[in-house]
Amino acid sequence: MRNKIGILGDGQLARMLCLKGHEMGLDMYILSKFIDSPAAQVCRSSRIIKGGPKDLSCVESLINAVDFVTFESEFVSDNVLPLLKKSKKVYPRAKTMEMVQDRLTQKNILEKYSLPTSPFIALGSTWPASLKWEGGIVLKARRDGYDGKGTWIYKTQKDYNNNIEKDFENKKPKDFIIEELIYFKRELALTFACSDRDQIEVLPLVETKQVDHRCLWAKGPVNHPQKNSLIKKIKSFLRQLNYRGVITFELFDTGDELLVNEVAPRVHNSAHYSMDALVDDQFKLHLQCLLGSKLNRPEVLADGFAMFNLIGSHRKKTTLIREGDFSLHWYGKKENYKGRKMGHLNTLSKSPELALRKLKKIRQEFNV
Amino acid sequence: MRNKIGILGDGQLARMLCLKGHEMGLDMYILSKFIDSPAAQVCRSSRIIKGGPKDLSCVESLINAVDFVTFESEFVSDNVLPLLKKSKKVYPRAKTMEMVQDRLTQKNILEKYSLPTSPFIALGSTWPASLKWEGGIVLKARRDGYDGKGTWIYKTQKDYNNNIEKDFENKKPKDFIIEELIYFKRELALTFACSDRDQIEVLPLVETKQVDHRCLWAKGPVNHPQKNSLIKKIKSFLRQLNYRGVITFELFDTGDELLVNEVAPRVHNSAHYSMDALVDDQFKLHLQCLLGSKLNRPEVLADGFAMFNLIGSHRKKTTLIREGDFSLHWYGKKENYKGRKMGHLNTLSKSPELALRKLKKIRQEFNV
Repeated sequence: MRNKIGILGDGQLARMLCLKGHEMGLDMYILSKFIDSPAAQVCRSSRIIKGGPKDLSCVESLINAVDFVTFESEFVSDNVLPLLKKSKKVYPRAKTMEMVQDRLTQKNILEKYSLPTSPFIALGSTWPASLKWEGGIVLKARRDGYDGKGTWIYKTQKDYNNNIEKDFENKKPKDFIIEELIYFKRELALTFACSDRDQIEVLPLVETKQVDHRCLWAKGPVNHPQKNSLIKKIKSFLRQLNYRGVITFELFDTGDELLVNEVAPRVHNSAHYSMDALVDDQFKLHLQCLLGSKLNRPEVLADGFAMFNLIGSHRKKTTLIREGDFSLHWYGKKENYKGRKMGHLNTLSKSPELALRKLKKIRQEFNV
Repeated sequence: MRNKIGILGDGQLARMLCLKGHEMGLDMYILSKFIDSPAAQVCRSSRIIKGGPKDLSCVESLINAVDFVTFESEFVSDNVLPLLKKSKKVYPRAKTMEMVQDRLTQKNILEKYSLPTSPFIALGSTWPASLKWEGGIVLKARRDGYDGKGTWIYKTQKDYNNNIEKDFENKKPKDFIIEELIYFKRELALTFACSDRDQIEVLPLVETKQVDHRCLWAKGPVNHPQKNSLIKKIKSFLRQLNYRGVITFELFDTGDELLVNEVAPRVHNSAHYSMDALVDDQFKLHLQCLLGSKLNRPEVLADGFAMFNLIGSHRKKTTLIREGDFSLHWYGKKENYKGRKMGHLNTLSKSPELALRKLKKIRQEFNV
């Protein structure tokens, strides 16, 4: 029986994949340097390969130990890419990860497959003299950007002229791309699960809130007039990529339009609500996709649901609250610090709004 | 923060408690002799105390390492009882476990608190000359009986006379009790969760099916005219015991009456459905009870639910099925053998009957 799953990492996403994998009777392997990393705490020690996802020999050991290998981050180190590309055990395919992790190739492929996205320009060896768009621009590092790292916004020509050379001293323009700054009404997210039998399931559309470039909450199900047409386009895109696994599309809702902002080819923070609100959560779905299993329709168990991240705001020890109308999912991280995702809360209610309101209140009681 | 939980064991109940505890950010400790026991597979190795629940020094180490100690079995070895009774960290209280694990003291206490149960007689130094009840009797070992072990049925005086001396050669009558054989219409189960704040929550009434003295399935929610009055009595009983934790009452439904057959002072197989069918499952509830947290109402997420045990029927390797409209909860036991509980299936549907029908079909596809 092919039931050994390896994860290239040891963070909270790996942890939640492991917990679900245990339930399903899968043998979960991880890469970890620490016995108390979020995932290592919940794994049998003989299935922890000591090292990180950038250590070639450790990645090789993981591939050899398991039947399937998967990611918890889209940032794959260059030195391990060739090895991952060669292996037939790796899902999503390493070449997909390579394409998505580079902001420019990601934008190119979105355009190629006619997925609506904000206008952008690739850069050469110099910074452009003027802003192309009146409303302003977003300048993004092509690689390794997350939680706001690697993102700069210039709203006026003056702001741009005054700061561009200073902000990017000693940096090469071709390592960045420029996108039109989008004034959206709200941010949404759509998660898909693709098994290898040409079966693609869509999770409910959710609204998300980013604060300081980090997901703070998600609520759903919500709707948008363009939802179905976008789903159709994304499905066709995923089919052509032969994608396998869970994947999230972060969206800008501009009112009339839905634009794809970013693609996360893995389990994703915006779908953590699924642990309590769906028949099968994103972690089970992702594991089923790896195994090539037929998926269930991701049915929603309540009229409304919400997820609220517990993001660290200090370095003190925290006391967790154990009671109330919510589910706490804690990541077991040893240190709390400002901006660190320490856990999340889920709840169900009669509407997305009521669910979110409940969690906002509960969040205040946590001294995270 | 008091968040270290120790479990006196390493089986599937300990495993499911650990998985839920991880989610909740609790530090879970277990007793295990093997690195691949069901619970040891999902725990950090530094939190596994090498030994079993009968090893006095190991139990002592566990008590010292944690803030709360709990059980996965009601059978507590005599040598560790004094230690457990002395500790204030142990829930349910060791003296409750002592009382419940002896079939005679359990029956006495049920009677004392006016809980309806089948008539019984305590034995002295000889076997009674005649059956007291026309319909037959059940002879039960007072200690360590489970899955049919320690249970004998005599339906006629002749059967009893012919076999009693032979069946119980060299055994002392006072180690057994005799109960009236009850001809029930169906078996039911009721699970309660008691936190220390005089807050007791009841899980939905379920019907269970025992085959070869092992729980095969449970479905619910079901009803019975005596349900509410029995709940009232049991609540009063639990309040007077000052009980803390989850506890299941296995019931005989004789048509008009509900009789308490057995009491299981721990998380219980008949409530495994709760992992998919309730807002909070029995494992979360039990952990919350230990911590003394306020509990949520155990709301049901569907009109019907069912649980089906995967009980081994051979010694061969099994292949697990990964797809379908069910949740697989696998226990990670290394060896499959006849009669061993290897895992269970849960599902939701429009009625208990539809849910059970679905699982019966799916069960046949598993070669467990």
